Amino acid sequence: MKLYYSSASPYVRKVMVTAIETGLEGKIEKAPATVAPNKPNAEVARDNPLMKVPTLITDGGEALFDSRVICEYLDSLHSGRKLIPASGGERWRVLCLQALGDGILDAGLLTRYETFLRPEPLRWSEWTSGQSLKVTQSLDMLEDDIDLLAGPINLGQIAVACAIGWLEFRKPLGENRPGRPKLFQWYDDFLKRPSMQATMPKA
Amino acid sequence: MKLYYSSASPYVRKVMVTAIETGLEGKIEKAPATVAPNKPNAEVARDNPLMKVPTLITDGGEALFDSRVICEYLDSLHSGRKLIPASGGERWRVLCLQALGDGILDAGLLTRYETFLRPEPLRWSEWTSGQSLKVTQSLDMLEDDIDLLAGPINLGQIAVACAIGWLEFRKPLGENRPGRPKLFQWYDDFLKRPSMQATMPKA
Repeated sequence: MKLYYSSASPYVRKVMVTAIETGLEGKIEKAPATVAPNKPNAEVARDNPLMKVPTLITDGGEALFDSRVICEYLDSLHSGRKLIPASGGERWRVLCLQALGDGILDAGLLTRYETFLRPEPLRWSEWTSGQSLKVTQSLDMLEDDIDLLAGPINLGQIAVACAIGWLEFRKPLGENRPGRPKLFQWYDDFLKRPSMQATMPKA
Repeated sequence: MKLYYSSASPYVRKVMVTAIETGLEGKIEKAPATVAPNKPNAEVARDNPLMKVPTLITDGGEALFDSRVICEYLDSLHSGRKLIPASGGERWRVLCLQALGDGILDAGLLTRYETFLRPEPLRWSEWTSGQSLKVTQSLDMLEDDIDLLAGPINLGQIAVACAIGWLEFRKPLGENRPGRPKLFQWYDDFLKRPSMQATMPKA
């Protein structure tokens, strides 16, 4: 399999953590790709017209995206304990937790694009505050309901950990730890996993 | 079940088309909710800290989001033909097609926010052209590979149809039909379904 890859992308990190946790890392060839909303990437566009990483090319030559589809695909390829429960309440809890992690990233990235990528005279504070509120409310919800992150490793936990890891890496909202001791105790523990250590983001 | 609902949201439409196609529409109570990136909604925030529609409250009182999770949940509740194939290549093809439809919408919405919601002096043409390119390339890819949309109704088709329906409704990129006769023949046919007719967007 070939994976369009960026070492700074938190969505790519989700895929790589999933690959490592499922024992599939050795089957993935990483193809470095630089994508940004204001820089079209014609190579990635041939396989994914949305020009986003991660995009996976399967051994059968099919392009798969986005990170959710790739993670579920990888989870189907191994015979160990699944990162996505097959059915029932646990499945919806894990998939919703993944959507929360992805939603934190979507809003966090829009905050970063607004405050870093966009020329300074064109920035709109209402946009930044609206996106930032989504992030802070989500982190506070996890702090208040830390049991959402309990239990053996699953894809929801991976998504949340990659989201927090990216917020800590880029700091688009400044410090994330104050007032969230339970969430960051969980995060610090999760970060010890070899899969998280092997995928620390690089600028 | 209760669904935080907006009649103009294409992601809500995906859920409602899914509900109608699976015979579950009568079990869903619609709770109108107005959300926008620059207008926090405290009521939705209690159930979804990302403050997005659709958010579904199950009969068990659990909040589920986003649209992908809700659609898969609904698809698990009925005993008819499934909108998401259970496994194998067909499953990945349908889920990737859904990701393409959602990605068209994500980029289309960012284009609309930039050219409609954001104060005019703060608009950035590089951003608009980058997001617009994702949309046009995706529509062109579907035109070139129309077989991706073949076969009995599935969630991927629903996502693409709701994306095109929204582009036609809001016109953030102007006209969408020129140069895409096969895609729009498929769309016009799909639009005849009662589920699509019952969910036409309203401003």
